[in-house]
Amino acid sequence: MRASVHRFTMRDPGDVSELAAAIHAGKVNPAHIVAVLGKTEGNGLVNDFTRGYLTQSLKLLLAEQLGSSMEAIGEKVIFVFSGGTEGVLTPHYVVFCVDPTPVASVNGGKKSLAVGTAFTPVLKPEDLGRMAHVNSIADAVRAAMAQARIADASDVHFVQVKGPCVTTERAAEARARGAQLITADPNKSMAYTRVAGAFGVAAALGELPPEKIREDAFFSRLDWFSERASVSSGVEVLVNEVMVLGNSAAWASDYVIAHRPMVDALDVNAIYTALGDLGISALGDNTAPALGRIACAMVKCEPDASGYVRGQRHTMWQDGDINAQRHIRGAVGGLVAGVIADTRIFVSGGAEHQGPPGGGMIALVAKAA
Amino acid sequence: MRASVHRFTMRDPGDVSELAAAIHAGKVNPAHIVAVLGKTEGNGLVNDFTRGYLTQSLKLLLAEQLGSSMEAIGEKVIFVFSGGTEGVLTPHYVVFCVDPTPVASVNGGKKSLAVGTAFTPVLKPEDLGRMAHVNSIADAVRAAMAQARIADASDVHFVQVKGPCVTTERAAEARARGAQLITADPNKSMAYTRVAGAFGVAAALGELPPEKIREDAFFSRLDWFSERASVSSGVEVLVNEVMVLGNSAAWASDYVIAHRPMVDALDVNAIYTALGDLGISALGDNTAPALGRIACAMVKCEPDASGYVRGQRHTMWQDGDINAQRHIRGAVGGLVAGVIADTRIFVSGGAEHQGPPGGGMIALVAKAA
Amino acid sequence: MRASVHRFTMRDPGDVSELAAAIHAGKVNPAHIVAVLGKTEGNGLVNDFTRGYLTQSLKLLLAEQLGSSMEAIGEKVIFVFSGGTEGVLTPHYVVFCVDPTPVASVNGGKKSLAVGTAFTPVLKPEDLGRMAHVNSIADAVRAAMAQARIADASDVHFVQVKGPCVTTERAAEARARGAQLITADPNKSMAYTRVAGAFGVAAALGELPPEKIREDAFFSRLDWFSERASVSSGVEVLVNEVMVLGNSAAWASDYVIAHRPMVDALDVNAIYTALGDLGISALGDNTAPALGRIACAMVKCEPDASGYVRGQRHTMWQDGDINAQRHIRGAVGGLVAGVIADTRIFVSGGAEHQGPPGGGMIALVAKAA
Amino acid sequence: MRASVHRFTMRDPGDVSELAAAIHAGKVNPAHIVAVLGKTEGNGLVNDFTRGYLTQSLKLLLAEQLGSSMEAIGEKVIFVFSGGTEGVLTPHYVVFCVDPTPVASVNGGKKSLAVGTAFTPVLKPEDLGRMAHVNSIADAVRAAMAQARIADASDVHFVQVKGPCVTTERAAEARARGAQLITADPNKSMAYTRVAGAFGVAAALGELPPEKIREDAFFSRLDWFSERASVSSGVEVLVNEVMVLGNSAAWASDYVIAHRPMVDALDVNAIYTALGDLGISALGDNTAPALGRIACAMVKCEPDASGYVRGQRHTMWQDGDINAQRHIRGAVGGLVAGVIADTRIFVSGGAEHQGPPGGGMIALVAKAA
Repeated sequence: MRASVHRFTMRDPGDVSELAAAIHAGKVNPAHIVAVLGKTEGNGLVNDFTRGYLTQSLKLLLAEQLGSSMEAIGEKVIFVFSGGTEGVLTPHYVVFCVDPTPVASVNGGKKSLAVGTAFTPVLKPEDLGRMAHVNSIADAVRAAMAQARIADASDVHFVQVKGPCVTTERAAEARARGAQLITADPNKSMAYTRVAGAFGVAAALGELPPEKIREDAFFSRLDWFSERASVSSGVEVLVNEVMVLGNSAAWASDYVIAHRPMVDALDVNAIYTALGDLGISALGDNTAPALGRIACAMVKCEPDASGYVRGQRHTMWQDGDINAQRHIRGAVGGLVAGVIADTRIFVSGGAEHQGPPGGGMIALVAKAA
Repeated sequence: MRASVHRFTMRDPGDVSELAAAIHAGKVNPAHIVAVLGKTEGNGLVNDFTRGYLTQSLKLLLAEQLGSSMEAIGEKVIFVFSGGTEGVLTPHYVVFCVDPTPVASVNGGKKSLAVGTAFTPVLKPEDLGRMAHVNSIADAVRAAMAQARIADASDVHFVQVKGPCVTTERAAEARARGAQLITADPNKSMAYTRVAGAFGVAAALGELPPEKIREDAFFSRLDWFSERASVSSGVEVLVNEVMVLGNSAAWASDYVIAHRPMVDALDVNAIYTALGDLGISALGDNTAPALGRIACAMVKCEPDASGYVRGQRHTMWQDGDINAQRHIRGAVGGLVAGVIADTRIFVSGGAEHQGPPGGGMIALVAKAA
Repeated sequence: MRASVHRFTMRDPGDVSELAAAIHAGKVNPAHIVAVLGKTEGNGLVNDFTRGYLTQSLKLLLAEQLGSSMEAIGEKVIFVFSGGTEGVLTPHYVVFCVDPTPVASVNGGKKSLAVGTAFTPVLKPEDLGRMAHVNSIADAVRAAMAQARIADASDVHFVQVKGPCVTTERAAEARARGAQLITADPNKSMAYTRVAGAFGVAAALGELPPEKIREDAFFSRLDWFSERASVSSGVEVLVNEVMVLGNSAAWASDYVIAHRPMVDALDVNAIYTALGDLGISALGDNTAPALGRIACAMVKCEPDASGYVRGQRHTMWQDGDINAQRHIRGAVGGLVAGVIADTRIFVSGGAEHQGPPGGGMIALVAKAA
Repeated sequence: MRASVHRFTMRDPGDVSELAAAIHAGKVNPAHIVAVLGKTEGNGLVNDFTRGYLTQSLKLLLAEQLGSSMEAIGEKVIFVFSGGTEGVLTPHYVVFCVDPTPVASVNGGKKSLAVGTAFTPVLKPEDLGRMAHVNSIADAVRAAMAQARIADASDVHFVQVKGPCVTTERAAEARARGAQLITADPNKSMAYTRVAGAFGVAAALGELPPEKIREDAFFSRLDWFSERASVSSGVEVLVNEVMVLGNSAAWASDYVIAHRPMVDALDVNAIYTALGDLGISALGDNTAPALGRIACAMVKCEPDASGYVRGQRHTMWQDGDINAQRHIRGAVGGLVAGVIADTRIFVSGGAEHQGPPGGGMIALVAKAA
């Protein structure tokens, strides 16, 4: 098997012409696409419809190319879009392909990029944000690891989860059945889903021992976290979708992946260390040619809940004009872009239990050296 | 003479308690204060009143401490505040003091921080943004250099200019006299003042040859610029106020200054080079103890007018929700803060002819090693 | 012929389920749809993609229902969406249908709602915002009037125009041919198209005499205007699309239309007068049952360029956080909604030469009494 | 006694020149000023510093005029500023004066504007938002009524309360003493103070029976409310400040006051009814000369928590770019301004238990007919 990574930019969230051209040119086989991860130029908040618009545009293109329905595309391909290209960030999407053709020699035992995806069953609204949710995601992560032929959890470097949340309709249906919801507020429900995803990933990867996987730690033990989980939530899905990225000797990909936790929004050290993991040396010099090997960058971050970064006050939580998540994405995006000399970075906020509190993580996919 | 630099933070733009405490503790002599430079937590745009609020609060404090009127303080001390603490930036202000007491030995010929200030006469509205304005600022820069006892322009590392702009009233008065204004639009007038300031500084420092100091280059030859000028404009002043920072053997300060132009918003190389100029080595490691020597950081930046950064599209100019200057301050602020591990940075936008187009500059004051 | 008006709301810009249900229930014949006018919950500015998302969603639905391509739908149906549901406004769209079946008795000579549409040929970029553009739109308005069987211009009460603007690509193509553009700035080009549309409508309807239809009046003689034109511009169209609404004895519709110019953002008198034109009496009482006859409300407005409304300063133009057009839509929308007790109002800004300066117009379609 | 009302506008929150001029001209006696109520052009949210800036500027002016300290002014005069001049609203402030000179004939028994103010003792942080807080405010309302010589609660038409909230420091102090806070979150604490104020006013005026004045109704029984309370909260005060406005035969003022609850954001009927109470007839005609009698307009409003207004969805709560309170102020401000033809309106959000849920109230002071 071979995994490949294709990065495209767009003029607007309805513009999928670069992918169309790559398919037309034979560079991307649409039947091989398993996931699309991207940043769109909305606000990244509840009323950001750029994610839905891009999803619809990609489904239209792929349905046409594959002669299937848009629904069928949605059941097969994972679409995860984070809104908000604050500061220097560039709207873009990364297409993950898996060519299932068996490969004779697989890099002589060398590990290369492995991709696995999985879907959980539909969860009942009353299970969202509870242990049932955590366990369901942990199972899906294990299934995706198996599909990716990764046996050792330390070979997993990035797990994207996209899960459902309560809506007014779903809450009403549950109440009619006499079921108890953890919350009926869609925004809080989204946060619960993110946290359930983080604990699910941590459980599956053994990042936290079983006794720490419990509901009373949600939102309180922020020092218990996964450093590979990146979780988002939205009304547009009913099941949890999981993509695992790692390195495996069973694959013959031209890419490898590495990751590092970021201790806070200023953790430039983590970025340089992750580059080092990939054999990329660019200390203080973003014109280093090796940076050209980077195929895809993913960052998780959040405004420090304490109101301080390295002992100094920040104003993100008090700003009534710009949402705190927009502030932090712009700042951390600016830092990572400066170090790697590329603005096409998937920077996502809402990092509860995903990396150290006030920090997050960085994962980088690069062409093999 | 000794120059000193004192950095304070505040809870809100009306909070000058840290300076009050420093005065009370004898750490700052209010009579020595020549300038205050700071970042306030407004939007940095026309309707940002945090600058005026902090100015009024500081004048109130100093008037009380020095037994003079608030007006007298305004005529003696330069107040330059840039609104907007996007991302991780911290509201703060830096007080520049000059102790005029003659010093016996002045560091054995070693150069140290020199500060000079100057004010131009009141300009007529019709002279704003024209060669008369440029020449007037160039004269003030030379006067401030003389006051700072800096003979060699290459010893100047940062020149802050704050100049007036046209207002509805001033425009009406000029028109009544039959005078021709370059623009009657206050926003455009502010841009013209910034450009006149940049050319004035470039002329005084010899950064541009005399034949390039001309009106038809304004806004068109963006490749002609000063790499030490930082210019702001506002309705609150009638004269141009100038502060020159450099190094001079005539001073016995505990501080030194360095600067570097930034070629674009991703120019991490420039930041590391400026640190190197000060003897601070922190390549890829922002926990390096030498970073603790930094006393004050000043950055000028702007969203690239081309709509692209390093070949990739940015969305700053098209965003109807967040002003482009807010975007760029957050991104470049995040980059600099990550490298120096400090969020107290004076990051200012509107960098026309102040550094390379799409870029800007960084200046750092540090305790002598 | 019969014209009908169908108003639908949506959960998000991708939700066209209410129209789908109406088609399914036989209430709307998709083959009769000639135009869709609506408000989407974006910011109404350059980076508002909710308009494109709704257009794509509606085209998908109609293509499916009519067994045609999405392109064919776009060539036949006019889609005009204004972003921004500030304040109490409700995201909604109004579907205009024309049933071409000849009707035996046409209301006994009574005039009822008439709808006509027309498209101009593709304009060259260098013609945008010039007399060629004005004339082309005037021709299209006359064609739409003829289609609507309206002979007397005083029977026309609302003309919606949607026209193209310059883009980077179109500007480059024009320059390569040596053509001169009136502007290469997309935002300014959009304003020129709005003005060309306003003068085109005014010319066709005789609202301005021929000698006042001239380029040097654009943006300067704001007292020369059409009081029925509502013009928008966008990169998504290449031709000008025109919809004329009026009353005609040749139609057997169940609806009638009226309009009034608004002299400023406070012109509550105009709203009550327009209601009176329709025989709706609701003076000071928005619980009046007759208000239930209103089928569709359209308002054009703009922030007064003087900075004052009825002698008092407004802050819309100085606000760096909220765009001036968002402010005015919220305020005028709140006023109209309060008077008619309905928040489903098409409120559009950018009203240069469309109604009195600082004001605009209101048009109301109502069920016949 | 005579109460008078003086309305001033300003260029920016630091501009108190109109009041200074009125004092200089002898139109306002600074010693008579008891309260200032105003709207400033900030965002009206946590990081709105325009309120503090205007307060400081007014205190500076009055301290200078009265030869007292700024602190003394703050202990004597009530300053209540609401940020946010969305839409057509005009930044302005209204100065309430009381001339204590005994008047021979007091309008022949006719009731006229009466003003009373009172301050509560300092509340302990643990008492905020509890019955102790409610009772303390009720006592102050009664004291202010007594000062205003209003015996019958039905003669009270507007009660402004400004109360303290928990801050990080105050919360820490309370915790150190082992005290239990109702909340340590400043934003929630502000909401609790508004609710305690509403119930305190309702108790003092008898708008709610004693058995309904209880903590478990806070935020839950939104149908229990005061229709005269307007409550704000902020970190800048330690005591609760109360101003009561009503009509009393003991006063010889040239003004009268009326109020009406508003059932929702579209309640134009309430506005016309309040005008009618003052003998102002302007049904559907805002050019009616009688509107010129209005001296001061105060409105309380809030975005309907249900997400619907008159059965139609609004988008205020989902908007990540513009805060819901800014939306509603712009819409309701636009409605009231259109009806009364004046944009100088004190429109304040956060109306929990202050008027019907989703609605609020309007109070108007007018020159006697």
